[in-house]
Amino acid sequence: MHSNQTPGPLDGFVVLDLSRVLSGPYCTMMLCDLGARVIKVEQPGSGDEARHFLPMAPDGKSAYFAAVNRGKESIALDLKSQDDRVIFERLLARADVLVENYRPGVLDRLGYGWEKLKLLHPRLVLASISGFGQTGPYRDRAAYDVVVQAMSGMMSITGHPGGPPTRAGSSIGDLSAALFACNGIQAALLRRSRTGVGGHVDVSMFEAQIAMLEGAIPQLWCTGQSPQPLGARHPGSAPFDAFRAADGHLVIAAGSDHLFASLAAVLEQPGLLQDPRFAQRALRVVNHAELKLAIESALARSPVDHWLSRLDEAGVPAGPLNDVATMMADPQVVNRGVLPEIDSGGGQRAPVTPILMTGHAYPDRLGRVPGLDQDREAILRFAQDGNGLPA
Amino acid sequence: MHSNQTPGPLDGFVVLDLSRVLSGPYCTMMLCDLGARVIKVEQPGSGDEARHFLPMAPDGKSAYFAAVNRGKESIALDLKSQDDRVIFERLLARADVLVENYRPGVLDRLGYGWEKLKLLHPRLVLASISGFGQTGPYRDRAAYDVVVQAMSGMMSITGHPGGPPTRAGSSIGDLSAALFACNGIQAALLRRSRTGVGGHVDVSMFEAQIAMLEGAIPQLWCTGQSPQPLGARHPGSAPFDAFRAADGHLVIAAGSDHLFASLAAVLEQPGLLQDPRFAQRALRVVNHAELKLAIESALARSPVDHWLSRLDEAGVPAGPLNDVATMMADPQVVNRGVLPEIDSGGGQRAPVTPILMTGHAYPDRLGRVPGLDQDREAILRFAQDGNGLPA
Repeated sequence: MHSNQTPGPLDGFVVLDLSRVLSGPYCTMMLCDLGARVIKVEQPGSGDEARHFLPMAPDGKSAYFAAVNRGKESIALDLKSQDDRVIFERLLARADVLVENYRPGVLDRLGYGWEKLKLLHPRLVLASISGFGQTGPYRDRAAYDVVVQAMSGMMSITGHPGGPPTRAGSSIGDLSAALFACNGIQAALLRRSRTGVGGHVDVSMFEAQIAMLEGAIPQLWCTGQSPQPLGARHPGSAPFDAFRAADGHLVIAAGSDHLFASLAAVLEQPGLLQDPRFAQRALRVVNHAELKLAIESALARSPVDHWLSRLDEAGVPAGPLNDVATMMADPQVVNRGVLPEIDSGGGQRAPVTPILMTGHAYPDRLGRVPGLDQDREAILRFAQDGNGLPA
Repeated sequence: MHSNQTPGPLDGFVVLDLSRVLSGPYCTMMLCDLGARVIKVEQPGSGDEARHFLPMAPDGKSAYFAAVNRGKESIALDLKSQDDRVIFERLLARADVLVENYRPGVLDRLGYGWEKLKLLHPRLVLASISGFGQTGPYRDRAAYDVVVQAMSGMMSITGHPGGPPTRAGSSIGDLSAALFACNGIQAALLRRSRTGVGGHVDVSMFEAQIAMLEGAIPQLWCTGQSPQPLGARHPGSAPFDAFRAADGHLVIAAGSDHLFASLAAVLEQPGLLQDPRFAQRALRVVNHAELKLAIESALARSPVDHWLSRLDEAGVPAGPLNDVATMMADPQVVNRGVLPEIDSGGGQRAPVTPILMTGHAYPDRLGRVPGLDQDREAILRFAQDGNGLPA
């Protein structure tokens, strides 16, 4: 199991996980990092299709799969076989949570729809993550990340003005749904601790992505215009962008009057503070293009590192544009132990769920990645008597 | 308060909220949508600085602030005044959760650091959201969204190859931290229901953003190269991108053999399935550029709407590139009631926290936006006897 020495906050909770690919597995990985026991139930033969997703590690196994399934246990069960259904139902009777991300209706057709489950297991929390939700005209449609990034409007505000379609580079459509689902599961468990009754949590990737448009929806409402992509710029704060210095780019976020004054001092451009175009927060947003020219003309005198240390001394939020390798070597990342090794060997590191808590430090090791059906024996014992734990 | 007819899953929990701007307020808005009572404690005079953030509604108030503070109550307290500290401490004694996003150390200097709070209020859950975390060499640095998008590597994989720096268009650095913090708070409350003891939850925006790099970190590990931006394309699945049709772009995600075969049928290009360059999932990723040319040459025959209805019939995940206005009018959004009105008048709509749950439907109205100090009387009564509720 995962190698925290102290029990996690969700110690004692058992999660049955029928989910595949990303949104569901990321959600259950969080529950696992928080201390729950996660039993991954996979299709015999091929298992979770993400086991075959690029990139592949030197041992031929998917590093992608490893990153979101570390610490879980695996059993292969064919939910169309009567014997395997008996095992699954014994596990259900011992589980607090069942997570699935089939298309809506598939779980019902397997005979485990909510209307049935709630009668058999009134304390169970069922979490269903889907592309568009369990109801509505798009209920039966599948979605992958790029589909919800596009349909939500997220892509309409990402990229450069007039430029080609651009997706946020990670699968934030899946991951935001995973984060909302994990919140929904925990809220349902808190309610259960008061009422004794579980519930069905319905999270839509499409809606999760819409909920991440914190500024774009107010902007449409205030201006009557759908907002457009702005490159690296913020629509409501300036300077808040990437800026070119002598040898490359850095980012600076200094929207408040106080931070803007500090920035002007670092740049040795006191004239910025007298300039009527930049005299107030709202004016700086309106005149962002002129402001960027003025800032970049000052930044051009010195390299990025020079400016970052000056800005840090002055307390102005700023930073380098790291690539992934540079980020992984960052002193703060190393100091906090943000990327522990996966136990399965090979040295792969992955981000821990970023929730530090008194009594629950970040683990030094993330647990092993289960091979398909690797924990069968222990899980069968657990199904039988509630006691089996993997070797 | 918010207008759900049924109590939410977090009904009965009281959250004191010292947070400002976005990460903290978004987290407490989620707690509020889930049924908690959220008491926003603001600086007398100016209040949360987001009250002054663009865009402004016709009534001159910030629509940005409204979108992330609807449903909360407000009291203005000066934590440097002795009288106001007495009130704050009475509220603390009645609170389950305290949320703050000051720079690390500020809460200690106010006399409410965790070492002190845990002695006075052992059941309290304190959640601290900061740029880089409560420990480590960057502890004292502030960060805004663009800083953590840049430093985490998120910007290094967002945008187009060789293109200018590009930020995901919404503040996913703040929002992901908010989502992790809300999960941490609920996990701590679940632990408390077992142990009786609260805890301090420490969430870093930087780490939250790193945790969203689900594919990029494995990619570096497998290839030795930091991944680069890919426009709208997925690094490990193809076709999974934006594609040009006769009158504009659409997105298609058809990485599996099964979906790829369905796509080829819709495009009337059976030859795609015989082409050795596209014969397996991994080969389609390697030969994505040739595959895109082949797909776009077929798509060029007809407009986006034609292809979307054909793809939908064939069960191939695909969608339009909606702007925010089009998204808001989408039949699924309307059907599910994803964007209710804020009560404060004017007709502003905002996304509800996308967690549907049995016994807890999406509300028809999102609650009012509190004016600064608007709920003072009710909150003072609550501080006194635990009973006051706002009018």
